Amino acid sequence: MAKVKVGVAGYGTIGMRLADGVAAQGDMELVGVADLAPTLAIRALYEEGMPYDLYLVEGADKSKFDELGIPVAGTFNDLLDKVDIMLDSSPAGVGAKNKELYEKKGVKAIFQGGEQNSVADVFFHGYANYEKGLGQNYLKLTSCNTTGLIRSVDCLDRAFGIDKVAITIIRRFADPGDYNRGLTNALKMDKAPTHQAVDLMTIMPHIDATGILVHTPVTHGHIITVVASGKDGRKITREEALAAFEKHPRIRVVSLDEGFLGNASLFKYGRDLGHRRGDNYEIAIWADSLVESGNDIMYAINIPQESVTIPETMDGIRAAMQMQATSAEATAKTNEYLGIGKFKKIWKEHKIQ
Amino acid sequence: MAKVKVGVAGYGTIGMRLADGVAAQGDMELVGVADLAPTLAIRALYEEGMPYDLYLVEGADKSKFDELGIPVAGTFNDLLDKVDIMLDSSPAGVGAKNKELYEKKGVKAIFQGGEQNSVADVFFHGYANYEKGLGQNYLKLTSCNTTGLIRSVDCLDRAFGIDKVAITIIRRFADPGDYNRGLTNALKMDKAPTHQAVDLMTIMPHIDATGILVHTPVTHGHIITVVASGKDGRKITREEALAAFEKHPRIRVVSLDEGFLGNASLFKYGRDLGHRRGDNYEIAIWADSLVESGNDIMYAINIPQESVTIPETMDGIRAAMQMQATSAEATAKTNEYLGIGKFKKIWKEHKIQ
Amino acid sequence: MAKVKVGVAGYGTIGMRLADGVAAQGDMELVGVADLAPTLAIRALYEEGMPYDLYLVEGADKSKFDELGIPVAGTFNDLLDKVDIMLDSSPAGVGAKNKELYEKKGVKAIFQGGEQNSVADVFFHGYANYEKGLGQNYLKLTSCNTTGLIRSVDCLDRAFGIDKVAITIIRRFADPGDYNRGLTNALKMDKAPTHQAVDLMTIMPHIDATGILVHTPVTHGHIITVVASGKDGRKITREEALAAFEKHPRIRVVSLDEGFLGNASLFKYGRDLGHRRGDNYEIAIWADSLVESGNDIMYAINIPQESVTIPETMDGIRAAMQMQATSAEATAKTNEYLGIGKFKKIWKEHKIQ
Amino acid sequence: MAKVKVGVAGYGTIGMRLADGVAAQGDMELVGVADLAPTLAIRALYEEGMPYDLYLVEGADKSKFDELGIPVAGTFNDLLDKVDIMLDSSPAGVGAKNKELYEKKGVKAIFQGGEQNSVADVFFHGYANYEKGLGQNYLKLTSCNTTGLIRSVDCLDRAFGIDKVAITIIRRFADPGDYNRGLTNALKMDKAPTHQAVDLMTIMPHIDATGILVHTPVTHGHIITVVASGKDGRKITREEALAAFEKHPRIRVVSLDEGFLGNASLFKYGRDLGHRRGDNYEIAIWADSLVESGNDIMYAINIPQESVTIPETMDGIRAAMQMQATSAEATAKTNEYLGIGKFKKIWKEHKIQ
Repeated sequence: MAKVKVGVAGYGTIGMRLADGVAAQGDMELVGVADLAPTLAIRALYEEGMPYDLYLVEGADKSKFDELGIPVAGTFNDLLDKVDIMLDSSPAGVGAKNKELYEKKGVKAIFQGGEQNSVADVFFHGYANYEKGLGQNYLKLTSCNTTGLIRSVDCLDRAFGIDKVAITIIRRFADPGDYNRGLTNALKMDKAPTHQAVDLMTIMPHIDATGILVHTPVTHGHIITVVASGKDGRKITREEALAAFEKHPRIRVVSLDEGFLGNASLFKYGRDLGHRRGDNYEIAIWADSLVESGNDIMYAINIPQESVTIPETMDGIRAAMQMQATSAEATAKTNEYLGIGKFKKIWKEHKIQ
Repeated sequence: MAKVKVGVAGYGTIGMRLADGVAAQGDMELVGVADLAPTLAIRALYEEGMPYDLYLVEGADKSKFDELGIPVAGTFNDLLDKVDIMLDSSPAGVGAKNKELYEKKGVKAIFQGGEQNSVADVFFHGYANYEKGLGQNYLKLTSCNTTGLIRSVDCLDRAFGIDKVAITIIRRFADPGDYNRGLTNALKMDKAPTHQAVDLMTIMPHIDATGILVHTPVTHGHIITVVASGKDGRKITREEALAAFEKHPRIRVVSLDEGFLGNASLFKYGRDLGHRRGDNYEIAIWADSLVESGNDIMYAINIPQESVTIPETMDGIRAAMQMQATSAEATAKTNEYLGIGKFKKIWKEHKIQ
Repeated sequence: MAKVKVGVAGYGTIGMRLADGVAAQGDMELVGVADLAPTLAIRALYEEGMPYDLYLVEGADKSKFDELGIPVAGTFNDLLDKVDIMLDSSPAGVGAKNKELYEKKGVKAIFQGGEQNSVADVFFHGYANYEKGLGQNYLKLTSCNTTGLIRSVDCLDRAFGIDKVAITIIRRFADPGDYNRGLTNALKMDKAPTHQAVDLMTIMPHIDATGILVHTPVTHGHIITVVASGKDGRKITREEALAAFEKHPRIRVVSLDEGFLGNASLFKYGRDLGHRRGDNYEIAIWADSLVESGNDIMYAINIPQESVTIPETMDGIRAAMQMQATSAEATAKTNEYLGIGKFKKIWKEHKIQ
Repeated sequence: MAKVKVGVAGYGTIGMRLADGVAAQGDMELVGVADLAPTLAIRALYEEGMPYDLYLVEGADKSKFDELGIPVAGTFNDLLDKVDIMLDSSPAGVGAKNKELYEKKGVKAIFQGGEQNSVADVFFHGYANYEKGLGQNYLKLTSCNTTGLIRSVDCLDRAFGIDKVAITIIRRFADPGDYNRGLTNALKMDKAPTHQAVDLMTIMPHIDATGILVHTPVTHGHIITVVASGKDGRKITREEALAAFEKHPRIRVVSLDEGFLGNASLFKYGRDLGHRRGDNYEIAIWADSLVESGNDIMYAINIPQESVTIPETMDGIRAAMQMQATSAEATAKTNEYLGIGKFKKIWKEHKIQ
């Protein structure tokens, strides 16, 4: 079977990781990436030896690339002519404009969380609603927090049924290397309910979700606390929840005693592992954060914001291109190619103490 | 009636504010403060003109104060001879040792949150269990987070009855000017359940409380999110909760639209008000953080960690010295002398939008 | 002699402190302050009981103040009719527009550092070029960093003669309570030479100044290191420099052993002193930062960015209104009214160890 | 010729990078790494599939490794029996104790900057004093800041002669993932002169060096400003200094216009490049930080603290083992194997604007 041909629009923090992700899928081919200007990310691509071909979007000044000696493979239109599907990680708002080109060229597309929901036919998550994305032309991925949050809630929902969640998002404010946004010695509030709870309900309409988001001056790894209520008042014990999380390939259960003291430990661990760009695809849940609140279960998740959406985006390609018929088959393929969950085979499971 | 004579042991961040608090009570007399070494706080006391007399605890080297010209009023024993009650804000562990002296001298004492519960007869909160402190010799105050948390939960409990709370504490890691402790670009987890939830249950045993604490690299103002469940499943609406909070003198309801964007806005506001040391005694609750989670109510509190326990400590003196018979009378006196809740008379109440 | 009548335009972080400063001057009268909207600072003014009358600038919506019950004394034109001189701390760019009104009304004005130099007749510093400001209509104050830097360089220049300085500014990025600007886990470079060095040369043209500025994610207190070269190669020893700094009323010499471990210690110290808004007017120089680099002297300054320009602005009023003929007389008056340098009488001088 | 056999003691932030560095040298063989406990770094080594053999130092509890299934190749003594030279990046103080074992086994060693100078025969830098290390048994590497600083000063010294430097170190306080050390919203001063200046003089005794160090709350990349004076007053122009830096293989000249806005840009760039652990071996100098201060030249350096000492440590092995006779030959070999300076061939040089 011919490989599915994929392009990436916007080679920034997310775009470069989408490219990595596609390049790792044995049944896909990364045709190239597109961008506007010789940013640091593009300079790094060049210095690395152009592992991915570069195309220029409309408005790009090719002479600036020529001056630097950065090879250009063609225009955005050239790229669209060669692909089956585009992953669009352009700055928010640009994706909607690009969609006109995609429609004209008959190319499918998956948009990242920054775009309006209306840009897509389906608001998509690889586990929670894979089947809705089957054969669709335009999908929109959930944002990084929502993607990771849904992984954990869907995991509990499949195991026990979930009626309600109340979340507190302790959000990192900027990405490493980000100078456009910043927060200094302050916690910043957003109006509640936070959009991630609303988004969760769009994907999982049988759950009542709400929550509060607080921005914090750190750069890597949101932390979300979740209070989840079982269906019809069913009690969920710590042991049950832990056992469910331990089985999920995209969830890494960790503990303070192991040295995972916070979000920075997980950021460091990705680099210590020698992973490309230091990335982790798994969310982490602290075994020692699990507590029972009456019949409800409460826990804390770590979200690696730069890379967490990559697997679910690969799932999205599988859905849109109808490469696999079910979430189980699709996520298994994605996980295999990305090496997700390999650690499950060598590390012992945690016990409630 | 003779004024109650009060001393303060430990003139640090809390101790200096306890001294301010006592000095402001019309029915108390601040005899003096005690410390060990010419710290910055003591140097500031001297530069300010010694508004409070200084006594030296055992182990202090008086010559170091003499060298600097800082006047010393006497020894710790001298201070104990003159007071009815001590407020002990010594470093954790020292209070327990001081207690032996207090017992010998027949002096009552109130310990701050850092000491073991066993140091005191009663673990105390001015609103939630004032009557338990009446006439007791040794009280221990709840910590800053617990004090503020209980204010809000007690407020809802009186109005509607509360069965259960699940909290997320987004904790400031260090105080302004603190170089001994620090956290840089990291969120740090604690083992759950966090002690503030356990402490709340000690004070309000009819409530089931649990929660998760995450440390953040900021210096002023914890933020706590609370999911509170009404008694026997009673629904608490946003309007009801807001109305209850609006009436509480030690709770300031704020909103993002007013410019209270986070904990730093409240820290700034205390300084803008020209308050001594920039202090706020009230906790703040964001009107636009109030959301309903099924029948539960969820909201976010700001805790000014340097000053929040001062009013409840004044309440504690009133209880231990039997100055007032009820929480209502005692807290009203404290509030009057500290100017707490004055803003309630001039600011409009918030409406749910 | 009639008091000089002063108004303040822009009641923000600087404006409220200018108002405090004028209100403290025995030979000046603060007529009022002007602003556009009911910001947190204006709300604090109201909650404090309106110690300063409030006027509304053009474009303000009075109904928003009326709704909140905040009393308004009149329009900006009303204010201008009553004053001799305005202190303009409006947002950058607005001051230049306001100048047209000042000219029309025949009112003098002093602009803060954010405006273009061209807005003023003289770029002013109370010590370094007081005489140039005498009787002028429009002065522009140096920025916070430049004001503090010049204090120290002028101090050395008067004592020994200075030919050249090379500075490194370690800049705080945001003010406490600032959510508009932020920097998270990053040091940010500016193009060199930094404007403070250029500005110093404008005020002190006989000195060759250059330097590099690095932004840091903290909120209170820039630190500047200075390498200063004596006139014609004259060596300046640590002892000489220290002795000169010890004599300057607006310089506080501090040391690590005393507990002044960094900028946060000085921020805390201002609050510990019970100063209104926690302010310090003095810059600090660390005695143990003084080192000799060949014949040059190197040292580190702390700049309290919120309040450091207040004294020099008071000096500016004195110059523009010809209240005193010399820098020595004017700065002495300002210092007396602001209580600057009082600590010099009680604290011992430092020795080089 | 047989490969030089190398071991690494202490598999932490530096140790894992030393192992990477040795593994990349074509003329060396990494025998294994040694540590005490199953830290996160060791867990990552295991999860990565044990690319490096693990030996246990004295005091290690092997059962803890066995429980986790982490394979152990032997004891520290076993490792010492197989190597020619050890790289010791144990916690400070442990290296001195290990030295006794090295002496007993007749194994050479290179210690990292945390150890006392007395532990070694020579305090070493690959460019500045390579020849002193030739054939020595025990070398101590300069610390990260000193290593990078000397690269730049040695570069200027070779080109123009340098008499004197005055430095300001704007130091990152903690490493990414570090919870043991932290600083929150504060700049912290050290006593001057800072040890890096003193250390520079030990390595380059003909230069008079001094400076001030300020700690900042960031995790990646110190920034140092340097004021360097040419020999006997010789003027060094910006153009000259820039040209010299452009030629140095271990210096990357960058500019703000390219997007290198600060230390975080360089940290990000290493990850964008796909480098293992996101590492950069080069220091960076901002072209637009170069300014002339009279005859002196001033500039700003970025120091990637986790990885900057790796190349000079490889140079140290070459010196101690007499693999190359000169700095030029040795550094060229190290650079080749580590891929240092490859970017020089594709990127254009900067011009002074």
